[in-house]
Amino acid sequence: MKVELQRVAPAEIEKRSMEIITSELGERSFPPEVLPVVKRVIHTSADFDYADNLVFSPGAVAKGIETVKNGCTIVTDTQMAWSGVNKRVLEKFGGRAVCFMSDPEVAAEAKARGETRATVSMERAAALEGPLVFAIGNAPTALVRLCQLIDEGKVSPALVIGVPVGFVNVVESKELMLTMDTPHIVARGRKGGSNVAAAICNAILYQASGNARE
Amino acid sequence: MKVELQRVAPAEIEKRSMEIITSELGERSFPPEVLPVVKRVIHTSADFDYADNLVFSPGAVAKGIETVKNGCTIVTDTQMAWSGVNKRVLEKFGGRAVCFMSDPEVAAEAKARGETRATVSMERAAALEGPLVFAIGNAPTALVRLCQLIDEGKVSPALVIGVPVGFVNVVESKELMLTMDTPHIVARGRKGGSNVAAAICNAILYQASGNARE
Repeated sequence: MKVELQRVAPAEIEKRSMEIITSELGERSFPPEVLPVVKRVIHTSADFDYADNLVFSPGAVAKGIETVKNGCTIVTDTQMAWSGVNKRVLEKFGGRAVCFMSDPEVAAEAKARGETRATVSMERAAALEGPLVFAIGNAPTALVRLCQLIDEGKVSPALVIGVPVGFVNVVESKELMLTMDTPHIVARGRKGGSNVAAAICNAILYQASGNARE
Repeated sequence: MKVELQRVAPAEIEKRSMEIITSELGERSFPPEVLPVVKRVIHTSADFDYADNLVFSPGAVAKGIETVKNGCTIVTDTQMAWSGVNKRVLEKFGGRAVCFMSDPEVAAEAKARGETRATVSMERAAALEGPLVFAIGNAPTALVRLCQLIDEGKVSPALVIGVPVGFVNVVESKELMLTMDTPHIVARGRKGGSNVAAAICNAILYQASGNARE
């Protein structure tokens, strides 16, 4: 068995990865708080398309950092995204992450109403107390319903991470989010995912910790 | 608030997505059991690169389907991939999914030995009874260690899904897996991820159920 591996200590692997990403981004320039987000998404996907796809409303990352520091609830639309969020760092600031997708009551209500579980889970989340960050990595129906709830004045998120992935109403849901005044980070186009949603949350969490882990 | 959405019932969204993927794959041809895997990975990533990147050893998908049907343990290298595997279908066949990454003993041993947690978690998994499917979506160190364990005769997986993502030893770990006799599905190059690992598991599970959900 023969393989030529780079000799990199476990603790150095992420650092070395980020150096490679920086090098390959070349002359591309990003605001200082945005760069760690772009890099972490590329780190989680190995997909440099995100250097072009990610759209940040003015001050969105700073708003995310401030919100996390003061303790907030991060709402995800999948258990996968929930799993990927660094709860250790989030809880250090008094925050928590929730996902209602596996709630049997949400499933029953969705079926009865002919909606997706993602739609109903956004309605549940909108009723939560305290500052909310929404991280939508999968379901465009969740992002569309969230925009409607904002429009109806039923929820006022501190930040929306809108990165659903796929082919049916995904592009449209993100273009809708881009028209909203709510601070947002959106991956324009079809790409995104639970891993991307979690990576953006973590890039914000690490900056809040004063350790961008770039 | 204005958005032009396609009117698609919740139950039809995945079907419609798969139709779009089929259409955009155009003339590309894949063996019948491979096609649902390729499509599900594109469904989870919106990234058609996987139509070219995914490499299947002869009979790998059939072996996966057979293994799942007889009940097996799917070992993942992240909690995210674990979250993404459809446990309902897996358990229907008497199977289960495990991940040792959050095990405090694994963390302690990794630190003491100067290895990654992923490396040590593969050693734990290798000691499990019964047929094993490994789904590695994140850590190249896990895939390399798994190849070594196979080489040392310490484990004989029914199937290895080798789709770690990133920049340090990722390509090398996958090229190593491609030299092994063990049935494997590998995403050649830098791309991959926990979402991709879970999608491949699910494409196999749905075929085992007789419902490819293409």
